[in-house]
Amino acid sequence: MTVETTMTRPLAIDDEAADLLFREARSIRTFSDEPVSAEQLAEIYELMKFGPTLMNNQPLRITWVEPGESRERLVPAMAEGNRPKTQSAPATAILSFDTAWTEHFAEVFPHAPQAVEMFAEEGARLEVGKNNAWLQAGYFIMAVRAVGLHAGPMAGFDADAVDAAFNEGTGHRSFMVINVGHPGEDAVHERLPRLTPGVAVRTV
Amino acid sequence: MTVETTMTRPLAIDDEAADLLFREARSIRTFSDEPVSAEQLAEIYELMKFGPTLMNNQPLRITWVEPGESRERLVPAMAEGNRPKTQSAPATAILSFDTAWTEHFAEVFPHAPQAVEMFAEEGARLEVGKNNAWLQAGYFIMAVRAVGLHAGPMAGFDADAVDAAFNEGTGHRSFMVINVGHPGEDAVHERLPRLTPGVAVRTV
Repeated sequence: MTVETTMTRPLAIDDEAADLLFREARSIRTFSDEPVSAEQLAEIYELMKFGPTLMNNQPLRITWVEPGESRERLVPAMAEGNRPKTQSAPATAILSFDTAWTEHFAEVFPHAPQAVEMFAEEGARLEVGKNNAWLQAGYFIMAVRAVGLHAGPMAGFDADAVDAAFNEGTGHRSFMVINVGHPGEDAVHERLPRLTPGVAVRTV
Repeated sequence: MTVETTMTRPLAIDDEAADLLFREARSIRTFSDEPVSAEQLAEIYELMKFGPTLMNNQPLRITWVEPGESRERLVPAMAEGNRPKTQSAPATAILSFDTAWTEHFAEVFPHAPQAVEMFAEEGARLEVGKNNAWLQAGYFIMAVRAVGLHAGPMAGFDADAVDAAFNEGTGHRSFMVINVGHPGEDAVHERLPRLTPGVAVRTV
């Protein structure tokens, strides 16, 4: 970080990292032929796993769908506009939450495993699982960028069909599908406007 | 980034940034007297606002609670174990989602404002608003760290009481409270275990 940067922007990471993760990062909709490596995909989890969750519950489950037979099963479950993207991405992750995340509680919260009783009621368990998996999805997208890849997150898909094809018997429920790779031609539209701090932020 | 790092870890950000954001970052529970600056708090939004959301909907609303009268109203709404932390943090953010996020849709999705009709039904609108605000909470925590501050996210509070005290008449619903500052004494316990890739990740 240069002195000038320190003086103009109070960042603890350098401008290049801030651009890569936040300011210049874009959701991409076309992919080049450049492959992704198994090491890169593995590293995404090795970074994002450290993001905090409620009582360390970590309900997110990641299913990497490889090109070939698996992808052929995924593409028809995507909304029509998301099919060409998903067909051309070198890797695609289905993000699900584990409805039975409490089964891992003693492992992730070893100093007070009895606290799992707070989530005995199914509604509370599902709600906490889903919310914290969405939180982890934010870490996942940041980690995709941190390893030098680009993410194309999608909500347009038939979650029941994805669950039938990929989550059968697991108790996992899909909530987001993210294409991962390098930008192809016309990978992005013009960036859409962000809300001003006047709308999104206040101080009391 | 050194050549060695490139060879052993496929990161696009340097190790210092990866440690700051992910690997060494911790949720803190005590705070030092070191103040936070208004510029740092403002920069958090200037970074996190770029994180992707469904149709760019950006439902997260941030309320910074300053020490003094505002904080005195917040502390009693926190779970007992979270009160000392919240009392001693130099800044605290209430994260809420806007139940009426669709009112800003034409501004954030100007090329297809009619798509807002997909969310005419209240249940769908609330669900999409809440989920995407949790997603943005992930970006928020990463941005806190990117400006060199530490986050202490908390779910233990009375959301109805927080909404009554801070969200009256806004249609915003609180879902997380995050203390922000610098670590004090005994700021962290030993890090809790993360799930192995064998539990959280699979490839099909």
